[in-house]
Amino acid sequence: MNISELSTPALVIDVDALEHNLTTMAAVLPGSRLRPHVKAHKCTSLARAQRTHGHRAFTCATPREVIGMVTAGLGDDLLLANEVVDPARLAALATLQDQAVITIAVDSLQTIDSAATAGLRYVLIDVNVGLPRCGCTPSDAGHLADYARGRGLAVRGVMGYEGHLMSIPDRAEQRIRVAAAMDKLVVASLLVGGEIISAGGTDTYDLHDQVTEVQAGSYALMDTHYGDRGHPFQQACFVLGTVISVNGTFAVADAGLKSQGMDHGNPSIEAATVHFLSDEHLTFTPDARTAVGARVKVIPAHIDPTVAMHDVAWVVHGDDVVDRWPIDLRGW
Amino acid sequence: MNISELSTPALVIDVDALEHNLTTMAAVLPGSRLRPHVKAHKCTSLARAQRTHGHRAFTCATPREVIGMVTAGLGDDLLLANEVVDPARLAALATLQDQAVITIAVDSLQTIDSAATAGLRYVLIDVNVGLPRCGCTPSDAGHLADYARGRGLAVRGVMGYEGHLMSIPDRAEQRIRVAAAMDKLVVASLLVGGEIISAGGTDTYDLHDQVTEVQAGSYALMDTHYGDRGHPFQQACFVLGTVISVNGTFAVADAGLKSQGMDHGNPSIEAATVHFLSDEHLTFTPDARTAVGARVKVIPAHIDPTVAMHDVAWVVHGDDVVDRWPIDLRGW
Repeated sequence: MNISELSTPALVIDVDALEHNLTTMAAVLPGSRLRPHVKAHKCTSLARAQRTHGHRAFTCATPREVIGMVTAGLGDDLLLANEVVDPARLAALATLQDQAVITIAVDSLQTIDSAATAGLRYVLIDVNVGLPRCGCTPSDAGHLADYARGRGLAVRGVMGYEGHLMSIPDRAEQRIRVAAAMDKLVVASLLVGGEIISAGGTDTYDLHDQVTEVQAGSYALMDTHYGDRGHPFQQACFVLGTVISVNGTFAVADAGLKSQGMDHGNPSIEAATVHFLSDEHLTFTPDARTAVGARVKVIPAHIDPTVAMHDVAWVVHGDDVVDRWPIDLRGW
Repeated sequence: MNISELSTPALVIDVDALEHNLTTMAAVLPGSRLRPHVKAHKCTSLARAQRTHGHRAFTCATPREVIGMVTAGLGDDLLLANEVVDPARLAALATLQDQAVITIAVDSLQTIDSAATAGLRYVLIDVNVGLPRCGCTPSDAGHLADYARGRGLAVRGVMGYEGHLMSIPDRAEQRIRVAAAMDKLVVASLLVGGEIISAGGTDTYDLHDQVTEVQAGSYALMDTHYGDRGHPFQQACFVLGTVISVNGTFAVADAGLKSQGMDHGNPSIEAATVHFLSDEHLTFTPDARTAVGARVKVIPAHIDPTVAMHDVAWVVHGDDVVDRWPIDLRGW
């Protein structure tokens, strides 16, 4: 099938750019140095490609992602890097422990109790390193680890996501601030014990020398938010739209905001100005070639929620559609 | 089941508020005066409730919505209020015409050709009344109607969405500007012929005396964007989240931006300040009762894309879960 035959809006993955990204990252962070975050693509086919590049441990954000990864045979070492207190979902994870190694983040007595009661075996202590989100204080990490061990849980180490330090304009400053955040995590690690110090993301993947593993995810498909940061990753995903209306000063494509994550603002079209998106419309400035029926490639501003709006990704090599990957880790 | 037993994030519809909204709207715009827009809820169960209130004609935004409505037996009079040039999808619609009346918006020779070639029977001429999106100029509407009739299509009239006039602060000014926009549509109607003049939305539902029908959709479930406009509709939908982490100055719930349309900004929590959302997290200011495991009701800033991120809505009467409605019109 040719890409021109796809119904739109369609999520499209450029397999050559993807392979470039996976190869590039695996050279910098080989094997277990990277724990790819599947929340960025929610796709076991893509996770399998990451494993082919040497990464056997993965990061997940939801119970559903963990369950889907286990079902796909990718359960060697799954970290649910998020707090969960839902007894039913935790119990569902616990039943998978004969097929998979599942570790869950905890940051409070309650989350430890929830994990222990459900019969989970492994936890990481989630440490707040500056992002106002989950995580205990570094000084609380030790007693939480003790409490977890007292509840029969194996504490594998610590995690701490420095999300507040992504996209800092000056990279030298970013490096200093990441190091300071990771100092906190290392202190927590000394209090907690265990082998794992897990942190990081695509924008800081090359700034980590204190952690044992980096949790980057966006590097595989990329978006405009990370695309202008000078990283050696290529844009490997776009939403294909069809022009449905043209007049003199603007044109409209069928790739609206129900096909695009909007939390980072509007997506982009190369050599065009995107004006605004409605539910099922994208209004942009046309050029001389823009005609009803023409296709446009819309580059996501934020890849994670964009992928999550689609149930399938079409994999292309040039203009040939070479595969169809279900986005099979959606939901919770 | 009690609402406290729902796994989160969960899309929840308050059936009493919904009934209030449907009753209130049906009193102002009874029967065919309202053509409810299903894009706002993507749910045939909710559409069936709207039909119970007397509305038998519906507006859709995508071929998938049309097909789903026909499959659900709600195909009395479906308007696909959007341009489509995909031959496969148009052909799929055409095959349903023995079970349903399907009318599609057209605004160009190409969209007319596409509809005619696929074997569709009915069109509306889509007229631009000021929103920079689809629609022909009023002065082009007549010759497009002639062209459509020449291609064997029945032209049922005109539509023109005044989306640029939603949320104007001063209602008196809004009324004047809506009237001016509708003047354009009436002119187009005179040129086009046909019985239908279709326009409007929730924020202008009570400002239309020149059209034959109003396309409002958000009124059924509502959101914060329309919620402060003084309309007699109640908030009937929220995303239920669970608090997963609390510290002194902020708390985190599991209702992140993959469960919330973000194009209108952050959602709201009553009596709390929402700081920011990540993929699977919502950081807010806790009060004294906020504890890990507590539930929060998150009010969407934009209902349409929020609903589209969920595969099911839980219908509640007070704290009792009384039904489970699939969001069965998702996708394209």
